[in-house]
Amino acid sequence: MKFLDEDVGFGDLTSDLLIPRGLKARGFIVVKGEGVIAGVEEAEALFRQLGIEAEAKVCDGEAAKPGDVIMEVRGEARKILMAERTVLNILMRMSGIATETRRLVDKIKEAGLNVRVAATRKTAPGLRLLDKKSVMIGGGDTHRLRLDDAVIIKDNHIALVGSISEAVKRVRERVSFTKKIEVEVQTLKEALEAARSGADIIMLDNMKPDEIRVVVERLREEGFYEKIILEASGGITPHNILEYASTGVHVISLGYLTHSAKALDMSLEMGKPS
Amino acid sequence: MKFLDEDVGFGDLTSDLLIPRGLKARGFIVVKGEGVIAGVEEAEALFRQLGIEAEAKVCDGEAAKPGDVIMEVRGEARKILMAERTVLNILMRMSGIATETRRLVDKIKEAGLNVRVAATRKTAPGLRLLDKKSVMIGGGDTHRLRLDDAVIIKDNHIALVGSISEAVKRVRERVSFTKKIEVEVQTLKEALEAARSGADIIMLDNMKPDEIRVVVERLREEGFYEKIILEASGGITPHNILEYASTGVHVISLGYLTHSAKALDMSLEMGKPS
Amino acid sequence: MKFLDEDVGFGDLTSDLLIPRGLKARGFIVVKGEGVIAGVEEAEALFRQLGIEAEAKVCDGEAAKPGDVIMEVRGEARKILMAERTVLNILMRMSGIATETRRLVDKIKEAGLNVRVAATRKTAPGLRLLDKKSVMIGGGDTHRLRLDDAVIIKDNHIALVGSISEAVKRVRERVSFTKKIEVEVQTLKEALEAARSGADIIMLDNMKPDEIRVVVERLREEGFYEKIILEASGGITPHNILEYASTGVHVISLGYLTHSAKALDMSLEMGKPS
Amino acid sequence: MKFLDEDVGFGDLTSDLLIPRGLKARGFIVVKGEGVIAGVEEAEALFRQLGIEAEAKVCDGEAAKPGDVIMEVRGEARKILMAERTVLNILMRMSGIATETRRLVDKIKEAGLNVRVAATRKTAPGLRLLDKKSVMIGGGDTHRLRLDDAVIIKDNHIALVGSISEAVKRVRERVSFTKKIEVEVQTLKEALEAARSGADIIMLDNMKPDEIRVVVERLREEGFYEKIILEASGGITPHNILEYASTGVHVISLGYLTHSAKALDMSLEMGKPS
Amino acid sequence: MKFLDEDVGFGDLTSDLLIPRGLKARGFIVVKGEGVIAGVEEAEALFRQLGIEAEAKVCDGEAAKPGDVIMEVRGEARKILMAERTVLNILMRMSGIATETRRLVDKIKEAGLNVRVAATRKTAPGLRLLDKKSVMIGGGDTHRLRLDDAVIIKDNHIALVGSISEAVKRVRERVSFTKKIEVEVQTLKEALEAARSGADIIMLDNMKPDEIRVVVERLREEGFYEKIILEASGGITPHNILEYASTGVHVISLGYLTHSAKALDMSLEMGKPS
Amino acid sequence: MKFLDEDVGFGDLTSDLLIPRGLKARGFIVVKGEGVIAGVEEAEALFRQLGIEAEAKVCDGEAAKPGDVIMEVRGEARKILMAERTVLNILMRMSGIATETRRLVDKIKEAGLNVRVAATRKTAPGLRLLDKKSVMIGGGDTHRLRLDDAVIIKDNHIALVGSISEAVKRVRERVSFTKKIEVEVQTLKEALEAARSGADIIMLDNMKPDEIRVVVERLREEGFYEKIILEASGGITPHNILEYASTGVHVISLGYLTHSAKALDMSLEMGKPS
Repeated sequence: MKFLDEDVGFGDLTSDLLIPRGLKARGFIVVKGEGVIAGVEEAEALFRQLGIEAEAKVCDGEAAKPGDVIMEVRGEARKILMAERTVLNILMRMSGIATETRRLVDKIKEAGLNVRVAATRKTAPGLRLLDKKSVMIGGGDTHRLRLDDAVIIKDNHIALVGSISEAVKRVRERVSFTKKIEVEVQTLKEALEAARSGADIIMLDNMKPDEIRVVVERLREEGFYEKIILEASGGITPHNILEYASTGVHVISLGYLTHSAKALDMSLEMGKPS
Repeated sequence: MKFLDEDVGFGDLTSDLLIPRGLKARGFIVVKGEGVIAGVEEAEALFRQLGIEAEAKVCDGEAAKPGDVIMEVRGEARKILMAERTVLNILMRMSGIATETRRLVDKIKEAGLNVRVAATRKTAPGLRLLDKKSVMIGGGDTHRLRLDDAVIIKDNHIALVGSISEAVKRVRERVSFTKKIEVEVQTLKEALEAARSGADIIMLDNMKPDEIRVVVERLREEGFYEKIILEASGGITPHNILEYASTGVHVISLGYLTHSAKALDMSLEMGKPS
Repeated sequence: MKFLDEDVGFGDLTSDLLIPRGLKARGFIVVKGEGVIAGVEEAEALFRQLGIEAEAKVCDGEAAKPGDVIMEVRGEARKILMAERTVLNILMRMSGIATETRRLVDKIKEAGLNVRVAATRKTAPGLRLLDKKSVMIGGGDTHRLRLDDAVIIKDNHIALVGSISEAVKRVRERVSFTKKIEVEVQTLKEALEAARSGADIIMLDNMKPDEIRVVVERLREEGFYEKIILEASGGITPHNILEYASTGVHVISLGYLTHSAKALDMSLEMGKPS
Repeated sequence: MKFLDEDVGFGDLTSDLLIPRGLKARGFIVVKGEGVIAGVEEAEALFRQLGIEAEAKVCDGEAAKPGDVIMEVRGEARKILMAERTVLNILMRMSGIATETRRLVDKIKEAGLNVRVAATRKTAPGLRLLDKKSVMIGGGDTHRLRLDDAVIIKDNHIALVGSISEAVKRVRERVSFTKKIEVEVQTLKEALEAARSGADIIMLDNMKPDEIRVVVERLREEGFYEKIILEASGGITPHNILEYASTGVHVISLGYLTHSAKALDMSLEMGKPS
Repeated sequence: MKFLDEDVGFGDLTSDLLIPRGLKARGFIVVKGEGVIAGVEEAEALFRQLGIEAEAKVCDGEAAKPGDVIMEVRGEARKILMAERTVLNILMRMSGIATETRRLVDKIKEAGLNVRVAATRKTAPGLRLLDKKSVMIGGGDTHRLRLDDAVIIKDNHIALVGSISEAVKRVRERVSFTKKIEVEVQTLKEALEAARSGADIIMLDNMKPDEIRVVVERLREEGFYEKIILEASGGITPHNILEYASTGVHVISLGYLTHSAKALDMSLEMGKPS
Repeated sequence: MKFLDEDVGFGDLTSDLLIPRGLKARGFIVVKGEGVIAGVEEAEALFRQLGIEAEAKVCDGEAAKPGDVIMEVRGEARKILMAERTVLNILMRMSGIATETRRLVDKIKEAGLNVRVAATRKTAPGLRLLDKKSVMIGGGDTHRLRLDDAVIIKDNHIALVGSISEAVKRVRERVSFTKKIEVEVQTLKEALEAARSGADIIMLDNMKPDEIRVVVERLREEGFYEKIILEASGGITPHNILEYASTGVHVISLGYLTHSAKALDMSLEMGKPS
């Protein structure tokens, strides 16, 4: 409801002045682009809090094309109009992220590759949960949700502790047994040290596809490839994603999914659906 | 701080395990793309709440190029790392919106046109204030902030009341004298009716540039052009914006600025700046 | 519900000790004075959140006289008694403001004048929305809701910028086209400067009725009277309001409506209505 | 700060556009009426949260006359202007209540009577703490703060339980030993029953001064007058308060103090104090 | 719901992955120890907020033995599992406190003594209301709820003011007539001073049973025993409680009830009850 | 601060009436039992928010004995007294949990065993973070923080899906690669199925030490012992913990640590330390 509050303020001036209290209406949320729908549960919840009946015509994760009605609502006209923009803003952002995630996931599948597409923590401020959920709906991997649900040892940590192996050792001794430990590396040497230190996941950060191939090959030779998850990250875009996906890594992560995906356009129409 | 909370959860596991309490560090926020900086005040405020000194090197609204340091911070290493992602997420989104806004504003100025570029209410959920502020920093117009700060009479309202003139009349009688009244129209006929009814602003919604030109011409002939603000909205993109800007409207509004602009990439680097 | 929380604390000690859980009761909110009712929607909403059925007998804005039942409630006796004081406090304050507003509005109408009675931002802390709404229900104008929904240039601003015309110019260039600009003036000279600078509204602040008449006359002569809204403010009370209303201004604003109006007395009675 | 938020919204448009960031200023809060000052601590706290230095010239509870400066502030001009209205609204309401309370307290003292003047729970919604504090600053008694800090057995409770003595007995057995028990009565008979049942306080509700005198006399004869506190409530105004005060009751309570007291007018002036 | 939020975070990963949306289930809350049930209302409220039907089989304050079903729930399986831990944590803590309180209350009754068992303010942070309510359900006295609902003058206060009698006098003059005044004393001399000063309650703090007996005897001789409530506090445990209870004090208070009572074990079982 | 609010309400009546505003004082937090200190950071933070200087004499995790001063505070006397109870409640609970955790951890170490002692989610409502942190300070393992940071497949999930192997498979396919998967089992057969299905952790739930030994032995034979973490849970107390610890499991978890540990007694003394 805080999403609604910021849009409504002290009230919907126009509708309060022109629409009679108690007048009932129907509304239809119509998609104007092609994509994967996400945010349906959030939209329903918001409408219901306002006493508006909301019936989803499309579930989260389903594809839609221009003209598709994804939700029908019935209730007080004033309230439908009051909620209109907020609901559309939620649906359009979430569907935009899900759509772009699905596009990349499919691209990789179609290339016959078995690599996960993951988000990062580069989400819009305040929207961590919705952004990550949208990625999941699109078929992506949420990756770490927050700073408390997995360990990622980065260059700043390593510089301070002295070595990757020492850092992994210290963490392993003290962190809960329920947590995985990921290490961010920039070179083959670091990757090997991380693997030998017992990292659960190795992030190959800002490395070129060819460099990554060398690392993958070497880790395979040393018997780590089945035991450790390899993630490529940094500088990956829809354009070069297949190059990265073909290196043998298990996961590819992109901030792009959540900080730069385009919204999927929708509108709310009152009256009969076309 | 709610932005920080969603990223930190119960704590920054990795840094808490590896970085000694009380260790001091310096950090530098470095821009990795070209653009207009926004969010500096928000970043400073967040750092200060954590007891970290933050010195802006670039003010909101200034241009930056790859490699530019926009902020230097000093304080407890654990806290700098804890805030890193949240601050970058704020700066990257706000700067992305400001950058795209400035680009369009400049495009119009360079074409010798005097037309305002305005945002809509299509902002990310929960980020109305930051998104609108970013547009303003980029040189755009914030447009209506919420449903309570100006009246916009749309087709649903008009359908219900019966006519534009009746709707404007009813609103004018009852709305505070401090509010402007905008009417959304789709045809020349409606535009004329809105103008004659005393609308302060007319939004030409989803009309083609040629249709808009006709409306502008006619309103000019009837003496309304100096008294009423004309806004073009709907289907406007960076690609066709000049076409719309050259029609004679005073304002062009695009949801794109806030729902689909790309983030401006940045990173936080510990140690000496390059 | 925060209004309820401050009254209930950890619980309604007396009722919890004396009234059996689950006992049902009816209650009637009875007016004890003469006035205009406001706050009915808020009262209903609060009762409903507690699972109490509430049926309004009088709508917001309707007049009531001593003994009138304005609402009937049915539900758990404990909860009705728990909510009693909070609901009455809301209804009594809101109705008090609406009653006083209506009295002044009617006084002006009866004098054959067409002048709006407006509130100011001198509302009780935390009650901006309810206080403004009460004024509106009483037939008054809400005036500016907050510092962000209209521009009012005051003496401190002008002193700093150097002149009224420069201040209006700077604001006009940068403020959203959706906002009106009001200028506060103390003299005829300032009023003329404000009018010529393009102000949408001029507030004649702390001027005597005779001084105001001179300003009105002069602005009329210069052709501004139809285009600019004139507001009288400062030192206006129920006693002298007609004097001000007869000067030709369009609006009269009084802090008195929200900071010093008397509550309209009411009580909640259990059992049968008289 | 929630008081500030409702007034500021997304920002102080006017000051942000006209006053340079960082410009320092001084401000003086000047009283425009005669009264008792209250709210100084709240005003200081609010200013300090904004980084504005605030120096009180008058303490809570001290008298002030027109022209008196009660507080001097120094800091960023934009922030002083942003906080102006909110701070004045707090000070004006609190001082208005304190002033009216002091007036009644003094009236009783000057009549040579020793009777407390108490508030009720008829406070403005959300302002229970500030309203009660204002009464205390004015020399009044706060009475019950909430439904959980003392027991007051009212007619509805008694009707349900069957008798005053039964109600008092049930409460006494189960309520914490730290709580006082008050009983509301309408007749001499009820007052006697309450006294004999062991009530700590008896509220003589809506009784006329003469009726009250009879009750006081009788309770005195039965030896209860020294042990039980007698409170007169209902229908008491500044006009008839002395009549009630002279009946022998220990306490007089009036809703009027908090729901209908006039604000004490003040303004914030920038620059040198007069 | 904040209790639920801290347990759920962004979602119940396991159930969301394994349990179909919409699948209905039944669940039974089963007690695994012997004790007094408390928290049933809180559990019902939490389930209902999630749209789960909850039917209590045992009321707050009733005894239960291992295997007893205290609540049956029906609704969406995902939601029942999501709420499971939070609800059990509430019920187990509250019932643990109620159980221990009842045990001590019964112990005293069985010894033929008429002494209240009271809690202190030594409650778990954030759980003041639930902890106090649990004590009440167990048959104990809640004692002071907060620092604002009764006065307790402690040694630090007395040291500062100079004497007990002066402290009581100052408080009596200024505190609301609705409040009781308790004085904490360590010696017979102090107890006598407190009694003579008009204290409503005297807390015999950290005194041995024999010392307390002397005080009780002396206060009885001086006629205070019927008028003043005597409370023993400090160092009292389940082991020595009868010794203290037999000294003649009216109330015994123990922090132990709320800061060290054991939880009463329970579990939620899906499917048919045993 | 919400912890403080629930204790203070509208104010510390006693201190406000007896202690002069602005009077400075020193205070010392003294331990009255033997144990491990936890909560020092939280106590410091709370004092600082009130403007009180707080100097820790003992760090979180250090041992203390009766009479030890663990913190010295300086500031306004009123505020120190206002915060006293809240700070002590935090420190006493957290230290109680840390003390009991350390005792069990040491017991296991002294027996020459290398087994982790872990908490569960059986924490006090609202205190998840503080309870888990206390366990960590005591040398224990926090285990899963919430329902979103690791997967634990329980009997209800398995019953629904059909088999452990199917459940693990479904989760593995869809859960983020950053999460570990734990399976709760009751028999050797289930343990083997879980191990073969690729579980990261197996929880041996409510099994007797002898049963657990058989499972450990068998998993060791099958080569799983080095790869999978084994956790014993259910029915484990300080009394039987060594029996469980000697079975060969890697982790032992007990709800007891957080739902039934005794508080470590402390007091705040004003004036000079002993």
